[in-house]
Amino acid sequence: MNAKETSMAAIPADLEALLATRRDGHGMPRAVYHTPALYDAEIERVWHAGWLFAGFTFEVPNPGDYLTLSVGGTSVLVMRDDAGSIRAFHNVCRHRGTLLCRADAGHVRAIVCPYHSWTYSRQGDLVNCHGMHEGVDKSKLGLKPLACETVAGLVYVSLAAQPPAFAPLRDEFAPAALPQGFERAKLAKAIEYEVEANWKLVWENNRECFHCPRCHPQYIKANFDIYDEGTAPDAVKARMAAAFARAQAKWIAQGIAVTHAHGGLATFPDPERDLWFAADRTVLVEGWDTESMDGQRVAPLMGSYQDSDVGVLRMRSLPNFWVHASCDHAVAARLLPVDQRTTRVRAYWLVDAKAREDEDYALDKLLPFWNLTNEQDWDICKWQQKGVDSVGYEPGPLSRVKEYNVDAFVRWYLKAMRAAGN
Amino acid sequence: MNAKETSMAAIPADLEALLATRRDGHGMPRAVYHTPALYDAEIERVWHAGWLFAGFTFEVPNPGDYLTLSVGGTSVLVMRDDAGSIRAFHNVCRHRGTLLCRADAGHVRAIVCPYHSWTYSRQGDLVNCHGMHEGVDKSKLGLKPLACETVAGLVYVSLAAQPPAFAPLRDEFAPAALPQGFERAKLAKAIEYEVEANWKLVWENNRECFHCPRCHPQYIKANFDIYDEGTAPDAVKARMAAAFARAQAKWIAQGIAVTHAHGGLATFPDPERDLWFAADRTVLVEGWDTESMDGQRVAPLMGSYQDSDVGVLRMRSLPNFWVHASCDHAVAARLLPVDQRTTRVRAYWLVDAKAREDEDYALDKLLPFWNLTNEQDWDICKWQQKGVDSVGYEPGPLSRVKEYNVDAFVRWYLKAMRAAGN
Amino acid sequence: MNAKETSMAAIPADLEALLATRRDGHGMPRAVYHTPALYDAEIERVWHAGWLFAGFTFEVPNPGDYLTLSVGGTSVLVMRDDAGSIRAFHNVCRHRGTLLCRADAGHVRAIVCPYHSWTYSRQGDLVNCHGMHEGVDKSKLGLKPLACETVAGLVYVSLAAQPPAFAPLRDEFAPAALPQGFERAKLAKAIEYEVEANWKLVWENNRECFHCPRCHPQYIKANFDIYDEGTAPDAVKARMAAAFARAQAKWIAQGIAVTHAHGGLATFPDPERDLWFAADRTVLVEGWDTESMDGQRVAPLMGSYQDSDVGVLRMRSLPNFWVHASCDHAVAARLLPVDQRTTRVRAYWLVDAKAREDEDYALDKLLPFWNLTNEQDWDICKWQQKGVDSVGYEPGPLSRVKEYNVDAFVRWYLKAMRAAGN
Repeated sequence: MNAKETSMAAIPADLEALLATRRDGHGMPRAVYHTPALYDAEIERVWHAGWLFAGFTFEVPNPGDYLTLSVGGTSVLVMRDDAGSIRAFHNVCRHRGTLLCRADAGHVRAIVCPYHSWTYSRQGDLVNCHGMHEGVDKSKLGLKPLACETVAGLVYVSLAAQPPAFAPLRDEFAPAALPQGFERAKLAKAIEYEVEANWKLVWENNRECFHCPRCHPQYIKANFDIYDEGTAPDAVKARMAAAFARAQAKWIAQGIAVTHAHGGLATFPDPERDLWFAADRTVLVEGWDTESMDGQRVAPLMGSYQDSDVGVLRMRSLPNFWVHASCDHAVAARLLPVDQRTTRVRAYWLVDAKAREDEDYALDKLLPFWNLTNEQDWDICKWQQKGVDSVGYEPGPLSRVKEYNVDAFVRWYLKAMRAAGN
Repeated sequence: MNAKETSMAAIPADLEALLATRRDGHGMPRAVYHTPALYDAEIERVWHAGWLFAGFTFEVPNPGDYLTLSVGGTSVLVMRDDAGSIRAFHNVCRHRGTLLCRADAGHVRAIVCPYHSWTYSRQGDLVNCHGMHEGVDKSKLGLKPLACETVAGLVYVSLAAQPPAFAPLRDEFAPAALPQGFERAKLAKAIEYEVEANWKLVWENNRECFHCPRCHPQYIKANFDIYDEGTAPDAVKARMAAAFARAQAKWIAQGIAVTHAHGGLATFPDPERDLWFAADRTVLVEGWDTESMDGQRVAPLMGSYQDSDVGVLRMRSLPNFWVHASCDHAVAARLLPVDQRTTRVRAYWLVDAKAREDEDYALDKLLPFWNLTNEQDWDICKWQQKGVDSVGYEPGPLSRVKEYNVDAFVRWYLKAMRAAGN
Repeated sequence: MNAKETSMAAIPADLEALLATRRDGHGMPRAVYHTPALYDAEIERVWHAGWLFAGFTFEVPNPGDYLTLSVGGTSVLVMRDDAGSIRAFHNVCRHRGTLLCRADAGHVRAIVCPYHSWTYSRQGDLVNCHGMHEGVDKSKLGLKPLACETVAGLVYVSLAAQPPAFAPLRDEFAPAALPQGFERAKLAKAIEYEVEANWKLVWENNRECFHCPRCHPQYIKANFDIYDEGTAPDAVKARMAAAFARAQAKWIAQGIAVTHAHGGLATFPDPERDLWFAADRTVLVEGWDTESMDGQRVAPLMGSYQDSDVGVLRMRSLPNFWVHASCDHAVAARLLPVDQRTTRVRAYWLVDAKAREDEDYALDKLLPFWNLTNEQDWDICKWQQKGVDSVGYEPGPLSRVKEYNVDAFVRWYLKAMRAAGN
């Protein structure tokens, strides 16, 4: 992208001023969810600047296996190369820009452009452009590489020329995810949702459980998220304390630990400490072995777990990933912005690679808990979008007790938008 | 809406200049129907500035009954409160902006936000926001009220902070509408039309009957609108004069009067005298008791009418309401802008509240006259929109004989757009 | 269109600068295919400035026969007048802008506006506007005429106030097309394609056969386009030379000649010499009498041809026309821009006017060769559009051997865009 194009996408001064109108402790102004110019700026400053979860390493097990994703209209190709490494490239031909790999996932022996047969190796090198004139320097016309990292079975890519440091995320995720064995998992089911809401509303929804009592009757049976120390009934506090204590004592043998030993959601993100990722493990409600409708296990144990009693491992990274991992399965979400009012979410249901469908697990037991939770969330996000589109919308106060993470998300967003402008 | 957002929606200087290019006595330039920035300015300067017809009082007979309408993406809630008054509010939660009442009409005991259960009374007061931190001042977080007035069974709302005076409309409509008894009517049928034309084209169509001979064969049998004093054949003039004279003499006993005793349409609007509303009563053609396909009555008498011979009461207010009321039924239209090229029109067929469907009236007799007229109009508006989108469109002269009200509408529009800018 | 509106559509300075970023010998930058403001400027500077192919004279054989076309939202009416000449007009009423003739093609006795019955003669004169006030000068309210020319059975129109000279095209096309007899042809079939790509990508595709080996297996059997002198195998060179020599010797008797006696595509356009049109005749591969699936004739000889051995006459004009004409049939394409990412292509299959369907020709033999070629091209253009929408798209080098005409098209486009700005 040349300098000219970059400058054309810059945030207008009045939008910069707009960001400054956000009142501390309150939601963000209408235009942030409503104005096309701001969405364009976000694609550049957030989505094309940070690290994006692209998929799982097990999705591209062999050289030539690939997956693709579209980030605000820009297609990214993730492929395992001949040496067994996973690489990412811009998924467009260096000749006339044709999209190269069209499927969400597939396998190629080489990447051959369907237009003029320019051919790239699985390392991204241009190996054939028969028909071009003498003097074309193939060495300068390889696929444009993108930053790509893997950790604990997760694949991340960045569209930035100079991406932020990945090591801090790796240091956090690698040990936390180790026992879950994402790299030895398989995909039991993926569902693509098209959410009729701005991507930020999807995150704000994700960052609090204030809405859970009304929206998620099944979710709150399994989790303590809706209870905070200050306001939980004494009986609940006692149950939480007992659960945390029991887990702390027992889990150590498996090499895991409770890292979030409070009610409510763990604090995330933390823009002041540059924490755009986090991982923690917490307990389930007594009687729940996993996040299923009745709390009963729905698949064989994953990874190195020896026991159902491992609580839930939760990980997330901004702007596009979260996962809830129980002893027997994990449910992840990958967000991608489609337009100002549309977000595509791909949900992944993972089980151990050795588990056999209909023998070791059944989709009608595996899917409902999170499919319901997802659909309930996308529905309320849709109605919130319709509301914030109104000139009558004025950002209200965020609950310091229940919505501290929404406030943190807003601070993270504003920081990201401004930082990119310098 | 904060100052920043308001200023972002201001009309660009070149659009102000554009409005000035309108030639006296001619239509408006292409950009007025074509340019997105101008549509945005209209929403602010016309639709969010004046009084809008919202519905009928009989649609919300009891406390907790509500109706909603969307004005250029801003949702308005009209509700009867516990004291029996009708109020209007912005239909969004003061917390995070979620749309509150989702249906076109319904009933609630209290207004409970479907997201975090913030709860508002039917007066709009925030009565519960359990989960918020200490110190949140509920008294400052009630639903945002909107100006709301009722007159003769009609409900009007305004999104303006300081709406124009409503009293002049009330003074005009109250006595004119009294005998029709809109407040004792019921809805026999509503039809929502999506018109593929800018809302101004719909009004320009409404403001002349020059098109009636070609477009509305059934309408012109019942009405004298197409005849003006200057050009009507002598035989028609004689029939008109006879009809007016007979009505003037007879109607006085019922307390009604011919207030438009000429051919052609009554003058409306009159921007120079700030008349954005008007009501008048005129005669039907001899042999027509009502605006039905054959002129025969299609329902019991409405309101206080004692006789079929009451002509037609016509009322209208800019920018979104008109009604034609015969002795036995009335047909109203509520316009709402959807986008630059789309207008939603809700048509209401009203009959006396005591009339019973299939006994006292039948929809197949009640609907056709105005359903046809509506569909004929929306069709021609659609083709006019396609034409004015052409660079070949140059505003032509308006007939001083037939289109004086189109000219008046244009003058009203230009005045409204400019006035709001000061 | 008044001065105000024109200035509103001017290219922003940053887009002018953007055009300047194009690197010699390379494709055009992303914004050229991606930015709405630039598309608007193209409609004005290219589509409303040059000559557009509108259709064939045989489509409007009699006075009152018409066809319409929409050029970026502006509707053009082409009609044969009472004197037998073909004229073009803006297809909108001079009164209030309503679209006049709604069908793609039809016949009228007079042009009567469906709104207020303003009536125009077939010469475009306003002959009746009954209902207007005294003093309206009908002589100033005729349909707005557009430049219209015919040559060799082709109809061209221009929306420009001062169109470029048409004579050079006439001088080229008239003799070249003479033996084909387009004016004595008939339409065997028309297909409208909606191509999901910017119109320029459609042209860039048309201007090279570099993509033919991969995309068009049937096309390359019939034509030598994929071979250039420098790189063709010796056996192919020998076959080409033999074919050219044989044709040169034989065709002279029929008054035709090989005018493109090389492999590859004839050079077109040539912006430095102001050549936005071209015609040439070349040979088919030995064994191919026509561009059909098996090379066998699919209809009777057209025009004045006496023999199947006439090669292929190819003609094209920017920005919207090309035709391939064999001895027995011709396939033409008319491009019209719908929006930035959508191009409507009407393809015409022509045969001699006297040929009878199912007796002299069958559609299942006539259509496949070019219907396949078209669909193959529209598909690859769609995927190219998706690719150039990516920020990862960087214009690559154009093959000097295979894509000289793509480079020429780019130079033509840039010249047209800049010239119009002066």
